[in-house]
Amino acid sequence: MTDSDEAAGDPQAAIDAQGERRREDLDDRIFEHSAGDHQEGIPFVGAGPGNPRLLTVAGKELLEEADLVVHAGSLVNSEVLEAYCAHAELVNSVGKDLEELIPLMRDAYEDGQNVVRLHSGDPAIYGAALEQMDALEHEGIPTYLVPGVTSAFAASATLRTQLTLNELANHVAFTRPQGKTLTPEEDHVSEFVGMGDVTTCLYLGTHAVRETMDRLLADGHDPDLPVAVVYHASWPDEDVILGTIETIADRVEEAGYRASALVIVGEAVTGSGYERSYLYGDWANRGPDSDG
Amino acid sequence: MTDSDEAAGDPQAAIDAQGERRREDLDDRIFEHSAGDHQEGIPFVGAGPGNPRLLTVAGKELLEEADLVVHAGSLVNSEVLEAYCAHAELVNSVGKDLEELIPLMRDAYEDGQNVVRLHSGDPAIYGAALEQMDALEHEGIPTYLVPGVTSAFAASATLRTQLTLNELANHVAFTRPQGKTLTPEEDHVSEFVGMGDVTTCLYLGTHAVRETMDRLLADGHDPDLPVAVVYHASWPDEDVILGTIETIADRVEEAGYRASALVIVGEAVTGSGYERSYLYGDWANRGPDSDG
Repeated sequence: MTDSDEAAGDPQAAIDAQGERRREDLDDRIFEHSAGDHQEGIPFVGAGPGNPRLLTVAGKELLEEADLVVHAGSLVNSEVLEAYCAHAELVNSVGKDLEELIPLMRDAYEDGQNVVRLHSGDPAIYGAALEQMDALEHEGIPTYLVPGVTSAFAASATLRTQLTLNELANHVAFTRPQGKTLTPEEDHVSEFVGMGDVTTCLYLGTHAVRETMDRLLADGHDPDLPVAVVYHASWPDEDVILGTIETIADRVEEAGYRASALVIVGEAVTGSGYERSYLYGDWANRGPDSDG
Repeated sequence: MTDSDEAAGDPQAAIDAQGERRREDLDDRIFEHSAGDHQEGIPFVGAGPGNPRLLTVAGKELLEEADLVVHAGSLVNSEVLEAYCAHAELVNSVGKDLEELIPLMRDAYEDGQNVVRLHSGDPAIYGAALEQMDALEHEGIPTYLVPGVTSAFAASATLRTQLTLNELANHVAFTRPQGKTLTPEEDHVSEFVGMGDVTTCLYLGTHAVRETMDRLLADGHDPDLPVAVVYHASWPDEDVILGTIETIADRVEEAGYRASALVIVGEAVTGSGYERSYLYGDWANRGPDSDG
């Protein structure tokens, strides 16, 4: 058994070793490369929310040149694979652990293949990309990230609104509700909603809409606060359910969705009642910053 | 003076009228179209963070077909315009108010031109797109949103990290510090940082790094908490400054940046010390949701 095999056999050890290295010695590539640049190694690409037209130009090019695409199964709209991966071998990562995925990607890369790891949305948001990158880097395989459009941005486009709206929604939170991976103490949904001017976007929470809304009601939040649930944002079977903290759970259960929807809580959902920013009036000429 | 001219002369009235309509009568287009679809009207396109390769495929196509592109001036990397807008008339929106921009876009659209409104990043995040859309809709001009990659995702790709990391950073906040448009009561930076497991991304705050960090220190937050400042994420002159709540202000001032940088506060900045998610082990086979 070589060192490499050993590390592939214990990904947490590889992750910890990479973490140690990160703290002691900054990665030169942070300073040498900009996001979106061509880089050496296996790209971890954000597939975007689903619609193939919402993939980045960089992501499209990488997929079109790929020999092997390891994708997130049903989390990635198959239209993306059909549109851009006609010539690649496709491997579904769902149900495979790191001990299987890392040697698969490593061996293909060392054989000279163009390997792409395709995550849904943006890989920085609930993507679990970094643990695979660290394990590959520990094996001597360079990796890098290619950002993508997250589903919250597709959902807000569908809803014809912004996640920030002047005076109404000054901030945005991407969060997930308590459950298997998050303790009640780590659940900040009620705190975000309680701030009053935050648009709270719940990922990975479709199955827990009722519990989440019940907790918000128990915490005394306005039952009439708007909530939107966008199932498969930007997919052909995209669906929008609108309601309030009080009404949304019944409607989601009636529709039968248990996964793959984004839940957005806050006044911004309706896109009404905001104040003109004056970004396009006097303000832009005075401020040092004028956009995001 | 026609009704149209009157509304164009008072955009807040047009916005309020559209808001009234939104509350009373849901827009059918929310249910008829998915994000990324071809739609009738003027698209409000997210240009992405800067690198032309990080524009979406949809955005690229719309720009290539455009006759008139109204863009956010220095907030959009000129390389995006050079790469995709060779045949379009370009108008810089900076310094122009709605009273000027709305008739300009309306008249071009009514003359049969392909008009594109290009915002930096994603238009849902501090984009002030909706007020222009509402004013145009009030004039009878259809509009829609095309999402984009926000600068925080380019910054995390550059930093080779995720904004969420298992156990370390369970949530992400997009926020801005108090100032001209936000009162101290509406400033939640310290609350987000105080939650302990939130990656706090500060938009529009480059000029206020010192005040922001001084407030965090005054509120008793750990002076050693990592902070990254990414100037012009994904642009050719992208720059990365790393530090802590205690050290970052000196370093940003030394570099001389007063705008156009994203400030990220939290443990996720270093990309170390997280725990393997087991997304690729047992976990994925148990949960109803398994990715973002």
